[in-house]
Amino acid sequence: MPTFSKRIAGLTGGGDDGWGLFYRARAMKTAGKPVLELTIGEHDTRTDPAILDAMAASAHGGHTGYAAVPGTDALRKAVAARLSAGSGLEYTPENILITPGAQAALFAAHHAACDVGDTALMIDPYYTTYPGTIRGVGAVPRSVAARPEDGFQPREADLMAAADGARSLLVNTPNNPTGAVYSDATLEGIARVAEAHDLWVISDEVYDSQVWDGAHRPLASLPDMFARTITVGSLSKSHAMTGSRLGWVAGPADVVEQMINLATHTTYGVPGFVQDAGLFALSMGPDMEERVAAPFRRRRDLVLARLAGQQAISAIPPAGAMYVMLDVRATGMSGKDFGEALLDEEMVAVMPGESFGAAAAGHIRVALTLPDEIFTEALDRLLAFAARQMT
Amino acid sequence: MPTFSKRIAGLTGGGDDGWGLFYRARAMKTAGKPVLELTIGEHDTRTDPAILDAMAASAHGGHTGYAAVPGTDALRKAVAARLSAGSGLEYTPENILITPGAQAALFAAHHAACDVGDTALMIDPYYTTYPGTIRGVGAVPRSVAARPEDGFQPREADLMAAADGARSLLVNTPNNPTGAVYSDATLEGIARVAEAHDLWVISDEVYDSQVWDGAHRPLASLPDMFARTITVGSLSKSHAMTGSRLGWVAGPADVVEQMINLATHTTYGVPGFVQDAGLFALSMGPDMEERVAAPFRRRRDLVLARLAGQQAISAIPPAGAMYVMLDVRATGMSGKDFGEALLDEEMVAVMPGESFGAAAAGHIRVALTLPDEIFTEALDRLLAFAARQMT
Repeated sequence: MPTFSKRIAGLTGGGDDGWGLFYRARAMKTAGKPVLELTIGEHDTRTDPAILDAMAASAHGGHTGYAAVPGTDALRKAVAARLSAGSGLEYTPENILITPGAQAALFAAHHAACDVGDTALMIDPYYTTYPGTIRGVGAVPRSVAARPEDGFQPREADLMAAADGARSLLVNTPNNPTGAVYSDATLEGIARVAEAHDLWVISDEVYDSQVWDGAHRPLASLPDMFARTITVGSLSKSHAMTGSRLGWVAGPADVVEQMINLATHTTYGVPGFVQDAGLFALSMGPDMEERVAAPFRRRRDLVLARLAGQQAISAIPPAGAMYVMLDVRATGMSGKDFGEALLDEEMVAVMPGESFGAAAAGHIRVALTLPDEIFTEALDRLLAFAARQMT
Repeated sequence: MPTFSKRIAGLTGGGDDGWGLFYRARAMKTAGKPVLELTIGEHDTRTDPAILDAMAASAHGGHTGYAAVPGTDALRKAVAARLSAGSGLEYTPENILITPGAQAALFAAHHAACDVGDTALMIDPYYTTYPGTIRGVGAVPRSVAARPEDGFQPREADLMAAADGARSLLVNTPNNPTGAVYSDATLEGIARVAEAHDLWVISDEVYDSQVWDGAHRPLASLPDMFARTITVGSLSKSHAMTGSRLGWVAGPADVVEQMINLATHTTYGVPGFVQDAGLFALSMGPDMEERVAAPFRRRRDLVLARLAGQQAISAIPPAGAMYVMLDVRATGMSGKDFGEALLDEEMVAVMPGESFGAAAAGHIRVALTLPDEIFTEALDRLLAFAARQMT
């Protein structure tokens, strides 16, 4: 029988995909055990019924045929308006390709930037799909550590050293898994590295509506950066529409045109009724996005308050996104060992920091995604477990 | 500024993408001209409201979060049952990956089969996205002509000669654009070629519910072929759900597992409410599929009846799919020139045979996709135009 392509067989790099603990927790839950899941980045609320009504109206109104591959004119325009408002740039529909979720956008951006064998930079800790996305286009991931002692902000000197011979740099701010929001100094350093090494910057800004300190600053808005920046966005996190698979990739019109061409051959567009739902969601304005973000801000504060009274666990206060990265090194355990034992002893599931690369070793990522009361219960169990490891 | 990847820049092979006439017709229509479109493969009816009701019920019922990347258990099971019934094989959910449409399935299948620089076979005439899909995974398309004088059935000897050093063979029966349904002899020849050269066969069977003569015979059902066949399917054509972007890729569990891994990095699943709509659609059974197919059978007969009384245009009676390929060579014109002039003089838009490769030169593809009365009007204009070219 024929073999698989080497590229697909090597997608995960041969190692642990980082999801082992998550799957174990899911299996326990399916088996009826009362596991409290603080693993994946998904809201504890469902998509707003008004958005679903808009989808149903569109579908019943006849928008069930092929939609234009780049996206509907109306949604491209609405996304352009949102990006313009957030950046001060002037986006037009020609700068936007609607994709079936941000993952498809990340894939398209790397496909546009990298040929086979090219080096693609990413920052460690990273979202778990990043290395496989890079390998999926035949490129080679090279990671640059963002250190806990720097608040998980990458250093310009490290990036500059790693960028030699690279084609692209993948950036994510607000950051998953760390909750870091890159400072002006970090962003300006990234811009200098990109210019010095003529890199494409692929900027994953799906958490742009979840910033707790300061404001989100889009990478494309830095001086001279628009022309080399491909911005990835989505309604998943901002509007609790994870399951709708609706995102976009934005950038200079010529690179967007290339990615539209790719989309013709990878997905052939996004359902028109889903796009109409997204258009309605965007029409609800920034208030809606704040409403969806509010519980994560509240629970982040709750975590920080609880941490104050103990020594086992510390954290860099996250400035954005729906996670807190907890430092468990004082317990002497790895993030993975901590997570596995926590699941067994307390039925609380978190993601080991090691699932996101080497830089977050000795940490665990806690998703702020359970209703407050249950979340507090899970946090209490977690802290009690941690305290026990200190004796 | 950085350049695009060579792969994305070369996706269309540098040539005409074959859609020029289609876009010109669309632009004329948008400008208010009464163009009759017989171009793309899309039904003149919308998705059944009962299917849309099922989607709305699922969404309002809370199925708006991330769905499992491989697809919902229920839909994978239903697709497995449909494939089992059509093939006599025993498909299980592990043999199925749900994709956002058949185009994503074609991309995944080639990604699984081919590394960069590998040769991927396809049969000319071909659906317009085929060469770009192959180039999109970094492979090199090599086409084998299926000749009009053979009823557009590829010859085993031609395939055998071309297969030397190839990794995969993309097959489409019932065929777009020709309407050919591959005979047992053709299918058995393909199987011999695949075994002799240890090829993956990627079998695009999206028109499996539209067969006018005989029955659809899945390639995977031929002796010893299941293990090397990746079957692509969709609800687009069978259930008039083109805009829902809901398809699948089916094959041995190990290659499906690889493609699930790829899906994690390219699309991250398909909306759960769309999958529930598809599940409902499949529950409507074969009657529903026959009802959706019936107009194309009727219009195909209508075309053949009209052709009987004239000499300018001939056709091999299509045995399946929603198209008729008309031979216009008696007019002395190319398919492209015929199509362009027909659009200008008669406001009827068709696809030039040359849009689908070299083997269909001197032909035009007519989609059977307008209501009968308007379709008849378009056909009359087309035949009158053709007759004028004979004087």
